[in-house]
Amino acid sequence: MPRYTDLSTAELQQELETLQREYEAIKAKGLALNMARGKPSSAQLDLSRPMLGVLGEDSDLADEEGVDCGNYGGLTGIAEARRLLAVMLNDNPENVIAVGSSSLTLMYDAISRMMMFGTGGHTPWNRLETVKWLCPSPGYDRHFAICELFGMELIPVPLTDEGPDMEVVEALVAADDAIKGIWCVPQYSNPTGITYSDEVVGRLAAMECAAPDFRIFWDNAYSVHHLSADPTEQDHVADIAAACRKAGNPDRYLKFASTSKVTFPGAGIAGLATGENNYAETVKAMGIQMVGPDKLNQLRHGRFLPAEEALSKHMAKHAALLAPKFQLVDTKLANALTGVVDCEWSHPRGGYFISFEAPKGTAKRIVSLAKEAGVQLTGAGATWPYGNDPKDSNIRIAPSMPPLEELDAALDVFVTCVKLAAAQVELAARD
Amino acid sequence: MPRYTDLSTAELQQELETLQREYEAIKAKGLALNMARGKPSSAQLDLSRPMLGVLGEDSDLADEEGVDCGNYGGLTGIAEARRLLAVMLNDNPENVIAVGSSSLTLMYDAISRMMMFGTGGHTPWNRLETVKWLCPSPGYDRHFAICELFGMELIPVPLTDEGPDMEVVEALVAADDAIKGIWCVPQYSNPTGITYSDEVVGRLAAMECAAPDFRIFWDNAYSVHHLSADPTEQDHVADIAAACRKAGNPDRYLKFASTSKVTFPGAGIAGLATGENNYAETVKAMGIQMVGPDKLNQLRHGRFLPAEEALSKHMAKHAALLAPKFQLVDTKLANALTGVVDCEWSHPRGGYFISFEAPKGTAKRIVSLAKEAGVQLTGAGATWPYGNDPKDSNIRIAPSMPPLEELDAALDVFVTCVKLAAAQVELAARD
Repeated sequence: MPRYTDLSTAELQQELETLQREYEAIKAKGLALNMARGKPSSAQLDLSRPMLGVLGEDSDLADEEGVDCGNYGGLTGIAEARRLLAVMLNDNPENVIAVGSSSLTLMYDAISRMMMFGTGGHTPWNRLETVKWLCPSPGYDRHFAICELFGMELIPVPLTDEGPDMEVVEALVAADDAIKGIWCVPQYSNPTGITYSDEVVGRLAAMECAAPDFRIFWDNAYSVHHLSADPTEQDHVADIAAACRKAGNPDRYLKFASTSKVTFPGAGIAGLATGENNYAETVKAMGIQMVGPDKLNQLRHGRFLPAEEALSKHMAKHAALLAPKFQLVDTKLANALTGVVDCEWSHPRGGYFISFEAPKGTAKRIVSLAKEAGVQLTGAGATWPYGNDPKDSNIRIAPSMPPLEELDAALDVFVTCVKLAAAQVELAARD
Repeated sequence: MPRYTDLSTAELQQELETLQREYEAIKAKGLALNMARGKPSSAQLDLSRPMLGVLGEDSDLADEEGVDCGNYGGLTGIAEARRLLAVMLNDNPENVIAVGSSSLTLMYDAISRMMMFGTGGHTPWNRLETVKWLCPSPGYDRHFAICELFGMELIPVPLTDEGPDMEVVEALVAADDAIKGIWCVPQYSNPTGITYSDEVVGRLAAMECAAPDFRIFWDNAYSVHHLSADPTEQDHVADIAAACRKAGNPDRYLKFASTSKVTFPGAGIAGLATGENNYAETVKAMGIQMVGPDKLNQLRHGRFLPAEEALSKHMAKHAALLAPKFQLVDTKLANALTGVVDCEWSHPRGGYFISFEAPKGTAKRIVSLAKEAGVQLTGAGATWPYGNDPKDSNIRIAPSMPPLEELDAALDVFVTCVKLAAAQVELAARD
């Protein structure tokens, strides 16, 4: 099949009719498949089942420093948990605050505190007329949702293969002191899978900001989530903490990570690493908000993954389950779409997503067609602030959850929907 | 020994010298005992050890509705957890939001949301000149600390044996729309151990408030924490939810509870039950703050304590460990102080504290003397807003943590310090 844009209108009309028949046949199957969210599969969860047996009725519940993990206290987390999260955060355990399951909650709470109390001794953000936030796009919808809830103005910034477009970022932050922060998923970015270059990391750390309380929210969600156990096939982003210290901005960053996609989503542990002043501010308010984290679950994690090697071995098992799914997506898209539809997609070396760039003006239509045919995708536009993808072209594919055979079936639906939408849009353009 | 106030100055002087010798002898022992915080003892924690074995490597991780507790989702908690917490909250499971370990965090987060976003469609509290909060005193220092952090003005209200002095409360809330809420520990109050009367519950629910967004923060921390398994020896506070609905104020209350003193402090589960509109507001913001709670730990709790009977039996075991400690405090105080020092103390039927009223102007001195002699007590004044006990008389005794023999030794120190401080103050008054 030649490229749709090269077909005559009659040929394209015929192709559209074929596609419509195919689509109706798919709909008739009554499928119920899901490629919407970055959930690990059952097989991945099973990898961490041994952790559930780590603590039993007769276990020693003291951490390595002798603290009884069953009782109150220990606001910043036990040594074992801080050490494990320090590996994921590429930082020192003493800079890590280890909490319960959710890094998203750590991010929300950090923004909430800065809104209410300010940071670094500056005016609390809720007393300002406007608070703006930079959103490299496509990006993560849950990040954007936090800023929206707090009434911020979200500014999309182009995300290149090297990270946010730094020309744009530098010009914006230098000119406007209402811009208080930026979201970053610096390694295996959600959804494009890119990893920030060393240059981008350095420029983010060193750039001149009009706001003295500008903060980089560094969500290193996929820091150890490679698709290959071979180090030469892995990305490793540079350390934002070292870069910020070097640039004389030691409190500019807050790093986040969690074991949600290492052990159990929702029942993992999460961590924050940040500069000295941010750390002190955080602990001060956290000490009012809670007595301490779930230390028993931290102990489970620390004993299950006691060192960096254990973590690497464990992540290699995840990779072995995930890599074939990413490979399948790539193969199916290439076979069905290359040379036929003007589109492209990412080829990440880690993370949980493939970012698909459909022909302009077709993303919403594709997602809606897929839904009608029983395949749930992430909502079109979700990867942009306010759900507003200006080209209506980006779709996030999340292949981790369905078993391979279901993923295969879902991808058949997907490519049919892509072709159908592309043919419809191409024909409409010729009217 | 007759009452100090009845002694001649010479006799009192002699008694003081005796006490000082006793005190020096105690100091020489180099004790390190703690009656400061309401922590369960090791023996109490051991009661919940079987729960740690509930989930092992091969366990079914689906809740009773078939939800995989190992994966993402389920914002309001699993059915088993909501049901268990509903018993503690005296409410229906469908009104309960079940989260991770900390009810304190639920309270902090609720206040944080009302500050940022307002409640019931009213102006966010952070946009108001002043926000005031009623603090029945003596009360819980961690409650007061939340309000202080958010810059509220704390107003102490007398706590009677029936609950807050309602004449005072009603006059205040009717006159001032800056008063947005009240802290309540309605059953086995921290620290006085009293339980609100039905009349007080009804008046709190029905009183006219100048602020339409006035909220009762109902921290039912000790709802099942009786010191006797005999129902006739237990307090049971009336339901604030029913009272508020009946009075036409269905969104006035937020109820809180946790299993921190049922299973493991810090590794328990916590719940919020509230009216329809508050519930919807809470879930809306929580859905941005997190994907869902630790459902595996909820499953452990639900399987360990599957019904109200199991909970009652479990709490009876706690009571059997706690009651002798409360008895010991009462006996030791009575033997040493009755008829000698003008003081009184509470005789609670549940909860974690005994509230001690020392002679006016001696509490700080007693706590400081005890500390110097190696016995840590809750800071004097901690039970009042801003740490300011106007009579400097209230001391919170927390007998749960130390083993009986250590508690015995700590109480010997305590009563000596009380007598010493009382004799000093009485002598000084005669100067």
